[in-house]
Amino acid sequence: MSDILKIGKYEFTSRLIVGSGKYPDFKTTRDATLASGAEMITVAVRRVNILDPNEENLMDYFKDTDVQILPNSAGCTTAEEAITLFRLVREATGIDIIKLEVIGDTAKTLYPDVLETLKACEVLAKEDFTVMAYTNDDPIMAKRLENAGAAAVMPLAAPIGSGLGVQNRYNVVFVKDAVNVPVIVDAGIGTASDAAVAMELGADGVLTNTAIAQAKNPIAMAEAMKHAVIAGRMAYKAGRIPKKPYATASSPLEGLIEF
Amino acid sequence: MSDILKIGKYEFTSRLIVGSGKYPDFKTTRDATLASGAEMITVAVRRVNILDPNEENLMDYFKDTDVQILPNSAGCTTAEEAITLFRLVREATGIDIIKLEVIGDTAKTLYPDVLETLKACEVLAKEDFTVMAYTNDDPIMAKRLENAGAAAVMPLAAPIGSGLGVQNRYNVVFVKDAVNVPVIVDAGIGTASDAAVAMELGADGVLTNTAIAQAKNPIAMAEAMKHAVIAGRMAYKAGRIPKKPYATASSPLEGLIEF
Amino acid sequence: MSDILKIGKYEFTSRLIVGSGKYPDFKTTRDATLASGAEMITVAVRRVNILDPNEENLMDYFKDTDVQILPNSAGCTTAEEAITLFRLVREATGIDIIKLEVIGDTAKTLYPDVLETLKACEVLAKEDFTVMAYTNDDPIMAKRLENAGAAAVMPLAAPIGSGLGVQNRYNVVFVKDAVNVPVIVDAGIGTASDAAVAMELGADGVLTNTAIAQAKNPIAMAEAMKHAVIAGRMAYKAGRIPKKPYATASSPLEGLIEF
Amino acid sequence: MSDILKIGKYEFTSRLIVGSGKYPDFKTTRDATLASGAEMITVAVRRVNILDPNEENLMDYFKDTDVQILPNSAGCTTAEEAITLFRLVREATGIDIIKLEVIGDTAKTLYPDVLETLKACEVLAKEDFTVMAYTNDDPIMAKRLENAGAAAVMPLAAPIGSGLGVQNRYNVVFVKDAVNVPVIVDAGIGTASDAAVAMELGADGVLTNTAIAQAKNPIAMAEAMKHAVIAGRMAYKAGRIPKKPYATASSPLEGLIEF
Repeated sequence: MSDILKIGKYEFTSRLIVGSGKYPDFKTTRDATLASGAEMITVAVRRVNILDPNEENLMDYFKDTDVQILPNSAGCTTAEEAITLFRLVREATGIDIIKLEVIGDTAKTLYPDVLETLKACEVLAKEDFTVMAYTNDDPIMAKRLENAGAAAVMPLAAPIGSGLGVQNRYNVVFVKDAVNVPVIVDAGIGTASDAAVAMELGADGVLTNTAIAQAKNPIAMAEAMKHAVIAGRMAYKAGRIPKKPYATASSPLEGLIEF
Repeated sequence: MSDILKIGKYEFTSRLIVGSGKYPDFKTTRDATLASGAEMITVAVRRVNILDPNEENLMDYFKDTDVQILPNSAGCTTAEEAITLFRLVREATGIDIIKLEVIGDTAKTLYPDVLETLKACEVLAKEDFTVMAYTNDDPIMAKRLENAGAAAVMPLAAPIGSGLGVQNRYNVVFVKDAVNVPVIVDAGIGTASDAAVAMELGADGVLTNTAIAQAKNPIAMAEAMKHAVIAGRMAYKAGRIPKKPYATASSPLEGLIEF
Repeated sequence: MSDILKIGKYEFTSRLIVGSGKYPDFKTTRDATLASGAEMITVAVRRVNILDPNEENLMDYFKDTDVQILPNSAGCTTAEEAITLFRLVREATGIDIIKLEVIGDTAKTLYPDVLETLKACEVLAKEDFTVMAYTNDDPIMAKRLENAGAAAVMPLAAPIGSGLGVQNRYNVVFVKDAVNVPVIVDAGIGTASDAAVAMELGADGVLTNTAIAQAKNPIAMAEAMKHAVIAGRMAYKAGRIPKKPYATASSPLEGLIEF
Repeated sequence: MSDILKIGKYEFTSRLIVGSGKYPDFKTTRDATLASGAEMITVAVRRVNILDPNEENLMDYFKDTDVQILPNSAGCTTAEEAITLFRLVREATGIDIIKLEVIGDTAKTLYPDVLETLKACEVLAKEDFTVMAYTNDDPIMAKRLENAGAAAVMPLAAPIGSGLGVQNRYNVVFVKDAVNVPVIVDAGIGTASDAAVAMELGADGVLTNTAIAQAKNPIAMAEAMKHAVIAGRMAYKAGRIPKKPYATASSPLEGLIEF
């Protein structure tokens, strides 16, 4: 009855991944992460220290836990930059599982540049990184990333930090349908039900940062997210009832008044 | 840190209420109910036996549990019928907490007739029943039911058995805002995230039957619902982040491109 | 090929009804109304002068047009008040087609009190008023209003002035299905597509005030609404294609991934 | 007061573009197109004859009209194929305005392969084609297409033929914001209001085929689409009212209960 999430050579029991940005301090980051039950926390290496052992270092806060640090390249806008960054990170920390993020619009949407992402993915996968690739919600592009060696694809639900939830539900289904590697819905989750929705659509996991870190009570929201991801996963596997206008719906209305 | 749901003189820890219809047998009804963590199960007295001790009786399946039986008047179309039914039920079983349901359209939507419901509520509340009143999602009507003595109002999310989820999210907020008694979102829940959504909107509880009983795997869906209701409740109390087009959203777009 | 909207003894070619509130002056009210092609304009008799011939009077601005004045009882909170008001209006102006509006919450939602509305409808219909009744979107209540003599029912799309558009699309379909009199979707329209949606759901007409009067350019929005109502009506009659996940959709997904 | 749509050197008064697939015959194609007021009709050159003057030829049906034929590369899956096709078409017909479509999934979603599209766009634009590029709804990719010489970008609303309407409203806004060339929302329009929505989001035009061709009454739906595009355009320019929970909404709820 186990339900393991395998990403490359790594295995996880929790299907929730959290972030480390926008917290007041590392103590709260740790507390919220543990409350969430997440086994992986992503870290924007350019903003949060995991490289310098002489400064306060996030990794120290998770040393005694099973939580895997997942370095990410937030802020990078070219394949080049991201590749260089991750080589440096692996050199310094030994970590080889990464969240690849190459941004195409740093001013507003923070949407990924899928072309640069694809380039970087190809290089990094060949260098034996376990690449989890942040991307748009296009199934064709997800497939290309898988072909380029991505160990997981991470389609966005909505812009980073927007809290809008899954904007295009069909695309989550289409992405899941297109690839064999795990699909982790990333970015745009605003509250617990958004995470549940993503899981019910068939996502293999969910990553959320702002929704927890910026909630009025981050610890409580972290716990809410834990339950939401479990709820969504179980509901997906349980097999939901179909939607219909009413219990006794006759076929003439089907498709015509489904909103 | 307790978070008790009080309905009249009754108290519950779980905020999920389940139903007993559409199960293959009482054994499965029991198993799913226990998996859901629900402390209350509603029973359509006209369809499921709780009155006749000489026939197979649902109450026997919950004797050794803390699950409260909640008789309902499904199938009644007048205040008269419902009042008569509940008097009989209390006489036979001693149960005085009830789900009042007076249907205005038995052919399609199964929507409640709020006028007949209101009449019955007034009479039954005066007779010291703890009345939980199934109603539409109109805050004005919810207030009238509270004034008529309802111990809880149960606005519909969508037609019974439809699985459509909360159709009018504003109305759940408005109903909650209008009354002081608990608001239990009832009818139309299709999957776990629907229950989480209802709770995040401020509902005090959720009732669902078909979504569990007719799922491919009712036991798994029951457990999913348990987590979903906890997730939604915790997220509501944690205080979610606001929605905005993107993290750096400037005010000119606010309200104009919120969908 | 005519497509006449009949409300009681009245007939209209346009299916758009406009309001007269929130305009800077009567001149703009007139210009926007004519641009919209509407043949009926509703007037809150308590706020806009149509009774006193010695003050600036809205009716003077429409004397040379075919636009029917539709007095409404906005601000009334009891059947009593509304009945008294309309008797007075008919006495003073001779107008017997009215929009009955009895508000249950004057502070926030401006939602109708359907019980008081029903009472007033019964009385006014017996006195030979052509009653168009503003109501919630409950099909059972719509049917009761029809039985009480309403010549048209006017379910709300969303709170007055909210601009949220149709919140519960199923309910528009259900209301239309429940009654034989015209269904005019009223309140909550925010932009042209909202009006088109209402018409595509089968509404016989749409009433909108704020969306036009408070648009940056009321005249342009009035014209947009004219086209939107025609578009929605024609699309409804043309018979739209069904929704499906993709053109080649196979049945296993139907109902399961319709959002 | 003119509101001209300029695509490269071409100018149009209508902002609706129609398709030529799925009609029973060329006569109906012509009648629906004229009813729609469209000034451009796209033609899948691999499926509909515009090249062979000895067979029944669609172009003959539009000879006496102002309707521009817009050849498209539907069915092509590589840049190569599309480039070859369009060279041939220009050679044979003299037409140099084209809809570039390179499909990445011919089995289900018919989603574009944006990488191949980008390659083809670069080559064709350099050869002085006026390239209208069918793409996903990613603003970063839209910008890349503009940089590659596209005269218009055509983000999809939903899968071709799905009739689902605009799935990600934010992305239409983001694409419009990202590029200076016209944005034509293409694919997935199901009914008139969908077209109005796209225009209200700021699209410069809408292309729809199946919604008209497969409607029960294609001519009526064509006319509905004409009005819908005008309605949406005018509403966009008129400046809609903001959405808020109710007319008197206080700020505490803003962003928190916008759905």
